[in-house]
Amino acid sequence: MLSDFFNPKTAAIIGASSNPKKFGHTILKNFIEDFKGETFAVNPNEKEVLNKKCYASVQDIKKGVDLAVVAVPPSFSNNVVAECVKKKVGAVVLITAGYREIGGEGIGREEELKNLIAGTKTRIIGPNCLGIYDTSSCVNTMFLPEYKLQRPPAGKIAFISQSGALGSAVLDWAATEHIGLSKFISYGNRADVDEVDLLEYLRKDRNTESIILYIEGPRDGRALMQAIKNTVKTKPVVILKAGRSDAGQKAAISHTGSLAGSYDVFEGAMKQAGAILCNNMEDMFDYGRVLAYQPRLKGKKIGIVTNGGGFGILCTDACIRHGLELAEFSKETVGSILPVMPKNYSQIRNPLDLIGDATADRYAAALNALIKDRNVDGIIALSLLQTSTLGPEITDVLLDANSKSNKPIVFAATGGEYTQILLRTLEKDGLPTYPSPERAVKAMSVLAR
Amino acid sequence: MLSDFFNPKTAAIIGASSNPKKFGHTILKNFIEDFKGETFAVNPNEKEVLNKKCYASVQDIKKGVDLAVVAVPPSFSNNVVAECVKKKVGAVVLITAGYREIGGEGIGREEELKNLIAGTKTRIIGPNCLGIYDTSSCVNTMFLPEYKLQRPPAGKIAFISQSGALGSAVLDWAATEHIGLSKFISYGNRADVDEVDLLEYLRKDRNTESIILYIEGPRDGRALMQAIKNTVKTKPVVILKAGRSDAGQKAAISHTGSLAGSYDVFEGAMKQAGAILCNNMEDMFDYGRVLAYQPRLKGKKIGIVTNGGGFGILCTDACIRHGLELAEFSKETVGSILPVMPKNYSQIRNPLDLIGDATADRYAAALNALIKDRNVDGIIALSLLQTSTLGPEITDVLLDANSKSNKPIVFAATGGEYTQILLRTLEKDGLPTYPSPERAVKAMSVLAR
Repeated sequence: MLSDFFNPKTAAIIGASSNPKKFGHTILKNFIEDFKGETFAVNPNEKEVLNKKCYASVQDIKKGVDLAVVAVPPSFSNNVVAECVKKKVGAVVLITAGYREIGGEGIGREEELKNLIAGTKTRIIGPNCLGIYDTSSCVNTMFLPEYKLQRPPAGKIAFISQSGALGSAVLDWAATEHIGLSKFISYGNRADVDEVDLLEYLRKDRNTESIILYIEGPRDGRALMQAIKNTVKTKPVVILKAGRSDAGQKAAISHTGSLAGSYDVFEGAMKQAGAILCNNMEDMFDYGRVLAYQPRLKGKKIGIVTNGGGFGILCTDACIRHGLELAEFSKETVGSILPVMPKNYSQIRNPLDLIGDATADRYAAALNALIKDRNVDGIIALSLLQTSTLGPEITDVLLDANSKSNKPIVFAATGGEYTQILLRTLEKDGLPTYPSPERAVKAMSVLAR
Repeated sequence: MLSDFFNPKTAAIIGASSNPKKFGHTILKNFIEDFKGETFAVNPNEKEVLNKKCYASVQDIKKGVDLAVVAVPPSFSNNVVAECVKKKVGAVVLITAGYREIGGEGIGREEELKNLIAGTKTRIIGPNCLGIYDTSSCVNTMFLPEYKLQRPPAGKIAFISQSGALGSAVLDWAATEHIGLSKFISYGNRADVDEVDLLEYLRKDRNTESIILYIEGPRDGRALMQAIKNTVKTKPVVILKAGRSDAGQKAAISHTGSLAGSYDVFEGAMKQAGAILCNNMEDMFDYGRVLAYQPRLKGKKIGIVTNGGGFGILCTDACIRHGLELAEFSKETVGSILPVMPKNYSQIRNPLDLIGDATADRYAAALNALIKDRNVDGIIALSLLQTSTLGPEITDVLLDANSKSNKPIVFAATGGEYTQILLRTLEKDGLPTYPSPERAVKAMSVLAR
């Protein structure tokens, strides 16, 4: 049952180890520290690991086991899975590599694995995967040490990756940027559970507001199209497809054996189904974040607020480039902003330049006006956080605007450590932030689709 | 004389102040701490500032003054400049705002300023500017506190910005990324020195290998075109022009009064002159860095090395998208890499997937082979630095390859803090690094022009 992967009451870590270099050590530690259910350690060669009694086999555990995480060498892994099937384990995350991806004997091993679970109720994610990082149930099979691979905070984005390596790198990056995830799923060789199963599950997941999928080739294009059609009724789906070019596709075939046919056909089908396609990793999360945390644009008219004229111009250029328009401010907006500006400031225009000595209060007045202005469909706020008049209280002003607006708001600021700390604070509290006007605009533009 | 701005022997800080909130305080502190020449403090209301004797006027200084930095209120600033002219100061950085940019009385003030220096040998950068940050002579007029605006290390990129605000934000960002600059120049209202003067100076500057220009509108398009033609004979010039769209141009007119005419005309002229145009701030520095630190591509054939298949595919896609091609490796390359790969690894292809258990030694073998391979014009190295087999010694391998290669090399890795620390180390030592394959490829592609 798929819910056993994400909301198990009991979990067995098979291959639990006292050796900190072994995957089974890190994974057991994750579960002991964070998992909300009950954890069992399994390893026939150990009596106790991390102060936990060690079972010789999953079959020795008296209680039912919802989830088994298998991190044993490939020469044992199928036997272990067979025991899980006998034990009626609902979900197996099979970390072990050495299956189809190595060719030769690995191909036979994967066929045997499929036969083992055929007709049973046991489902498998993997083999050759990183597995699951779920910020709600705290199922966490990530086995790399945290100093190399940080863990992102809880949030509303689900990220599914056919590539474990790429998934882990992106997870690590997301953690540093304080981008909140509901779930990360690396499903490896997809001997059983595939992207279609995961979409069907995630579309009903209450913690997930947007879904990001990195894929090299779908197992079944038609089924994926249908799953996307079902999902986008309630949640947006962003897809990064590797192997767009002929050369890239050749590389994809050699990497995962994925055969996708022409990218144009894929792109056409996915777009028709309602997915948002992107070109690269930056876009993937830039889109996923804004889609998870902001409402859709009801029109294309954007209001820009800035304290640096140059940024306002670049942002304007980017709006036009990405199919958005500049709103004409209402009389009420002009009337409510003029009083907070210096005396020699005469014209309230869009982009609204609050000029270099802008304070957080001036931003508050501007944002409140644009939130009320019916001519404005969405707001892009830009700040030079380096100026002497703008203190960190700008974050409160932005979060306050974000919480009371029913229009989308995004924020961009370019800068060093101080700026980046403020950006992460905002990001963590649900305001999507970007390091440049260009990226903020591109993200805003997907809300118009 | 323009060299008095960048290589003065003596400098007077006019408006030097004991009050840490005043610009004249921070600037004097910069000079006392770092400037390689002799510094004088000037302020009629102070006797001593930061343990330095304070002169009432620049005219009271007995020695000649090459550079004066003026940070006094606008009601005094022209008088102060007049004294500098009498003192035969070669270069004045006029930080003071309240000139043309405020309209009204400011316009008259700027006209008066121009008249003051007409026919004299005194040159002015500003008014309404941040001035100069020179990592060689340590002339540094940046007046924002360092916790808000960090200072980048010494390097080979010169960055000229018509917008001080944008310039400071980008400077701060560059510092955090450890991107090395030779000079940063914010020239404000360009009452005197403009982008053409600066290009003509920088093209002979021995510390500068590439020049980045952010501009809202050139003062004299034809003169700029000629200056670029002269400059690109020895150094590449990257231009980010704000106000590309009609809406953006309107905003530019209201911001700096810059009138550029159609962007298409501008773009055509600048490209014809040999400049590289870019769309946004990321590209501006992504291009500037690779141009400053890497040789040109002699052909379009790229070799890709990675330890993650997914990244290799994305990189391949990006190469095709940006007009590059994938090299076919020579027999010698294949022969020299096979022995360092695991036994069941059979095919050496491009992108070269060193697979997930790649060590730094495996990277060394691959990079050495590609450096020697005549079919390969440029190398894009990618790494998942999160894997357990790849330690920080990969940085030595990459820097070693970079130092011995006469082909361009760039590096990309996606990840969190650990990854970012390694990237900055590489960046500091002259290997351009990028947070994604896409950006590495885009940068590499400008070396083909």
